[in-house]
Amino acid sequence: MGFEDTICARATASGYGAISVIRVSGSKAFEVIDRCFQPLDGVPVQASKGWQVKFGQFLRGDRLIDEVLVSVFRAPRSYTGENCAEISCHGSEFIVQQILETLLDEGVRLAEGGEFTRRAFLNGKMDLAQAEAVADLIASETAAAHRVALQQMKGGFSNELSRMRSDLLQLVSLMELELDFSEEEVEFADRSQLVATVQELTDHVRKLIKSFALGNAIKNGVPVAIVGATNTGKSTLLNALLGEERAIVSSIHGTTRDTIEETLNIDGITFRFIDTAGIRSTTETIEIIGIERTYTKIQQASIILMVLDAERPEYFEEGLSTLASRIDPTHQQVLILLNKTDILLNEEPVLLEYLARIRRAAQAEGINPLCILPLAAKSGLGVDELRCELSRSQTALHHTSDATMVTNLRHYEALQEALQSLERVKEGLELTIPTDLVAQDIREAIHYIGTITGSITTDEVLGNIFGKFCIGK
Amino acid sequence: MGFEDTICARATASGYGAISVIRVSGSKAFEVIDRCFQPLDGVPVQASKGWQVKFGQFLRGDRLIDEVLVSVFRAPRSYTGENCAEISCHGSEFIVQQILETLLDEGVRLAEGGEFTRRAFLNGKMDLAQAEAVADLIASETAAAHRVALQQMKGGFSNELSRMRSDLLQLVSLMELELDFSEEEVEFADRSQLVATVQELTDHVRKLIKSFALGNAIKNGVPVAIVGATNTGKSTLLNALLGEERAIVSSIHGTTRDTIEETLNIDGITFRFIDTAGIRSTTETIEIIGIERTYTKIQQASIILMVLDAERPEYFEEGLSTLASRIDPTHQQVLILLNKTDILLNEEPVLLEYLARIRRAAQAEGINPLCILPLAAKSGLGVDELRCELSRSQTALHHTSDATMVTNLRHYEALQEALQSLERVKEGLELTIPTDLVAQDIREAIHYIGTITGSITTDEVLGNIFGKFCIGK
Repeated sequence: MGFEDTICARATASGYGAISVIRVSGSKAFEVIDRCFQPLDGVPVQASKGWQVKFGQFLRGDRLIDEVLVSVFRAPRSYTGENCAEISCHGSEFIVQQILETLLDEGVRLAEGGEFTRRAFLNGKMDLAQAEAVADLIASETAAAHRVALQQMKGGFSNELSRMRSDLLQLVSLMELELDFSEEEVEFADRSQLVATVQELTDHVRKLIKSFALGNAIKNGVPVAIVGATNTGKSTLLNALLGEERAIVSSIHGTTRDTIEETLNIDGITFRFIDTAGIRSTTETIEIIGIERTYTKIQQASIILMVLDAERPEYFEEGLSTLASRIDPTHQQVLILLNKTDILLNEEPVLLEYLARIRRAAQAEGINPLCILPLAAKSGLGVDELRCELSRSQTALHHTSDATMVTNLRHYEALQEALQSLERVKEGLELTIPTDLVAQDIREAIHYIGTITGSITTDEVLGNIFGKFCIGK
Repeated sequence: MGFEDTICARATASGYGAISVIRVSGSKAFEVIDRCFQPLDGVPVQASKGWQVKFGQFLRGDRLIDEVLVSVFRAPRSYTGENCAEISCHGSEFIVQQILETLLDEGVRLAEGGEFTRRAFLNGKMDLAQAEAVADLIASETAAAHRVALQQMKGGFSNELSRMRSDLLQLVSLMELELDFSEEEVEFADRSQLVATVQELTDHVRKLIKSFALGNAIKNGVPVAIVGATNTGKSTLLNALLGEERAIVSSIHGTTRDTIEETLNIDGITFRFIDTAGIRSTTETIEIIGIERTYTKIQQASIILMVLDAERPEYFEEGLSTLASRIDPTHQQVLILLNKTDILLNEEPVLLEYLARIRRAAQAEGINPLCILPLAAKSGLGVDELRCELSRSQTALHHTSDATMVTNLRHYEALQEALQSLERVKEGLELTIPTDLVAQDIREAIHYIGTITGSITTDEVLGNIFGKFCIGK
């Protein structure tokens, strides 16, 4: 394949641990390791069987660096498909650095992010969708995200795509056969059968595209926006929701997401709070939500937490009216929260009246909230109920089957392109458009499906995909 | 040995990485893994050869958790001496948790800190000094610390101790033979030969004790105190010294040290800045250094950076006089720094006069500074020279031989106890004190030396030692 370099990288997380693992892969991997590793059994790695662990001393020149384990994987039976070794050393940063430097001295190159997996792909050990699933698997933080990534890594999605692709190839070859004999006006393919096949494929692609909403929520979390006028207690509410999790949340690396966001895990579902700082800094009324940036962010949310202030009932109607003009009721779920209800502790009739008023105002604006919940974010009153409501709002996520789910924006976009081509194919078949044009559209659909698994790919696409991987994978 | 439990723990650092490794050790390790691991080759771990890597699926019930590698190590050829396995999975926190929980469900127990190494010790795979070196090795951040820990782990120190112990055992057995035949008044042992042997052993122990100053500096860093009146620029100086390293420094876990301190690595030597906050908060003159806490801290320093202020020459003599009363010139090195010399940029004669005055004042107080350095900490002027001087002050650390070095306070204290016993033995032999009393002192020396390698030990001592290890080691 022409990647002559032998590469190395730390494969375990950096930090304090009992052991660290360094990966080496490439045609010279064993030769290089034999120059700096003295196995206890005296048998060099080059002469050792694969899938074996060897104990010995790792030396830099004549200086002992550590006593290490070396796992030997011979090509092609390795992760990358090349000769591969994993050096397991004591978990000291100093030792890891020394081992890496020794390997670099011996002409090994430090791997780029995802380069091991990239080689695995280029050597045919996995397709592109599977390779991308490896990164998703590492980043998965919930049971659902883990399940979807694992299924994709095992090739569930790839198999579906490959079946679709071979169906399409069969279609196109029939049509091209017709073209070859076009002077004789033969029709090798039964048109109605062709239409049925294309319909079936179109339905399948549509189903996959539709699964992205759920798949994306599983992988990246359900986007939630907390909106409301200043001083209604939005920040307090967010803090109350996050509770003790906050410290953990803030330590999550921004590896799969562009920025570090506040996320909350309820019953295995990740809720991702969209940064609506723009709203927080507005001065008084909800009208100022109109700031473009914040407005756009609200559009990205699947769930809107609309916070009203029990101390300012005069703004109920105004607030809900503004909200109504900003949301899309067919795609966004609204939960209305009446905050600071602790001031109404002994005035239940007032509270009930407020809630009824809010319900009427929401109805008048065409908002159909999942619930209208009295809260006192500061004391935590009602916060558990809110968690339940949030969890309940995502019933679909609780009942995901093992059906394939698209979780990757790149795949989603490719499928949409494929769908357009397929729709043109169907139309073409029905309108008896010249066979060569229809065949061209089928070729296009094949192309887009091929980009997902990587049968068709470019260096740029590969660079984009593997650039997001961590070093060592 | 009676540790029936099978234990497990994550062995790699937590955080984002390509792979994570989970260790399992104990009599039931293989049996348990066979219940949740389906190897691709169909051969269960229990039937597999040791030092082999197996690929397969790790399952929780019938749910796939990950595709993993399992390295198999059969007792006694394993780290702990028990049946041991290392499960290498994708580096997702979720997967690690799932695998650990699956193992716990199967009756495996989560290992305590250092429990794998503790078992290695109890199974005779290493002695206590070697086990302690494992922790030191993981924590080592400089070449010198790494070399000393590695040497100790390989058993260099242990061998010396074991030779001393067997010499002492021979001595005591000779003496006890005499006691058995005491009625016959025989002297089996040539007294002058005995005295010579004890003298040799005493010298050896003294040498080891002496090596602790250096060993401790290597392992824990050279303690440096920055002293001087308020507003002389001590904090600015510290910041200038730390420079870009600061961010790195503050992320070091407080794993081997009790607290996170500012440390600086110059030419592979760690300098540890003692928190002298007490000084920083004093109001005006150096006299107030006298605050007891700060005074004690200055005593712990090997190097004193005395900061004088070029803007306040009237305090030069007073400052140095106070310093002289606080330090121990035989054990502490003093570097005098004249800060804020940028105000004297065009007044070289004044600067030279100040430096001469400081030199005279220091001499008068019996302080023999390594250097008197003009500085401007704010602009960084002279900071590189200061780094050089600091590095040069530790020539001994640059030229450490491969001689054994004591780096562990526990060992140091045990050696001091042994030295006292040996001195009593020597005295006893010279003053012809009754043989049984001398033999008793030899037994004591043997005891103390034995506590280092762990030939003599208690659960409490083991708890102290291994409690400081990380989980998974």
